[in-house]
Amino acid sequence: MERHLDEELEHLNQELLKMGAYAEEAIYKSVEALKSRDKAMAQGVIDGDSRIDQLELTIDEKCIDLIARYQPMAKDLRFITTGIKINAELERIADIAVDIAQRTLEIVDKPLLKPLVNIPRLATIAQKMIKMAIDSFVNGDSELARKVLLSDSEVDNLRNVIQKALVEDYMVKDSSTAPRAVQLLLIARFLERICDHTTNIAEDVVYMVRAEVVRHHPEKLK
Amino acid sequence: MERHLDEELEHLNQELLKMGAYAEEAIYKSVEALKSRDKAMAQGVIDGDSRIDQLELTIDEKCIDLIARYQPMAKDLRFITTGIKINAELERIADIAVDIAQRTLEIVDKPLLKPLVNIPRLATIAQKMIKMAIDSFVNGDSELARKVLLSDSEVDNLRNVIQKALVEDYMVKDSSTAPRAVQLLLIARFLERICDHTTNIAEDVVYMVRAEVVRHHPEKLK
Repeated sequence: MERHLDEELEHLNQELLKMGAYAEEAIYKSVEALKSRDKAMAQGVIDGDSRIDQLELTIDEKCIDLIARYQPMAKDLRFITTGIKINAELERIADIAVDIAQRTLEIVDKPLLKPLVNIPRLATIAQKMIKMAIDSFVNGDSELARKVLLSDSEVDNLRNVIQKALVEDYMVKDSSTAPRAVQLLLIARFLERICDHTTNIAEDVVYMVRAEVVRHHPEKLK
Repeated sequence: MERHLDEELEHLNQELLKMGAYAEEAIYKSVEALKSRDKAMAQGVIDGDSRIDQLELTIDEKCIDLIARYQPMAKDLRFITTGIKINAELERIADIAVDIAQRTLEIVDKPLLKPLVNIPRLATIAQKMIKMAIDSFVNGDSELARKVLLSDSEVDNLRNVIQKALVEDYMVKDSSTAPRAVQLLLIARFLERICDHTTNIAEDVVYMVRAEVVRHHPEKLK
């Protein structure tokens, strides 16, 4: 039975990695659609969300089923309950990619306000953070999770730069740009929110690993 | 042992109700501070967040401990794992109240752009939704949870009204209002996000109740 649970947990890892990959892809495509004015790609992100919702339910059921069937103790139990929380965060992240795709559809027919540099940069950071956060969970690597947390100030800075430029260089100087500038500002905020969810995942991993350390190796706390 | 778990679950309910009350209070105070230009109140929301973070950890530990000690099956297990997710959502909601308080501190020294009507209205809806969502969990009341889900379109409409007014009546007409209008727009978005988290809670409750119905009373699905 013990080995069987290990196999099940390995399968759970694979499912969460898949969920993470779906979320990364949704972010990439939503911002790529914005950059390249590609309506079909934006629509694809919106249509693809049901696949992610379905996988979330499957993983959630899997986690509850594993707890009920194996009654795992300590480390494994904490791994599974953390998996439940991470799964929910990834679903939220994919939802936000849908929000970005919807904003994109709203402005795609209007002239581009400016060449997009910092928004795609923010999207790339978000994708990297998701990958690191999931890897940190799968490997129980709290150091890697801490690196995700360190990215947070870079994200805040970049979002501030984007917001300041949109308000001061566009809205204030030429009020006719406001409707489009607001949409870009919201997209930057959506990306920041994705990073916040990723930070939640990393915090959950740090907490999962530390709680384990505290319970079984109190000497490591010194 | 059975009765003991019931008592523990009742205690978990009380803790989650307390968490919900804290979150509601943080939202109320963050928007009240904005309305009444009260810096101390805004700062109080920011300072009070550590209390909510601490309660989140306590509840999370409690849930894992209950699973480990009682190895609950089916209904009780699903109740506890749903509690873990709801607890996380409430902590995020309180974090967003902190975001609102921070925006408030940024604009509190500048002249009020306009009398605030719809933003406080949105905050009131958010508070009601939280209360209903937690009550629906505590009572396993999926009908009440569905009512929370129905509020979502009201929230979206109100947020659209707020955003449209800020962009069209302020930013576009007088570009010098843009920096303040953007802050109000972000606050409206933060409140919408709080409602999204509350919707997540209600969806979790519907799912919790339905999964139970499906497992034990398949005839109810017809």
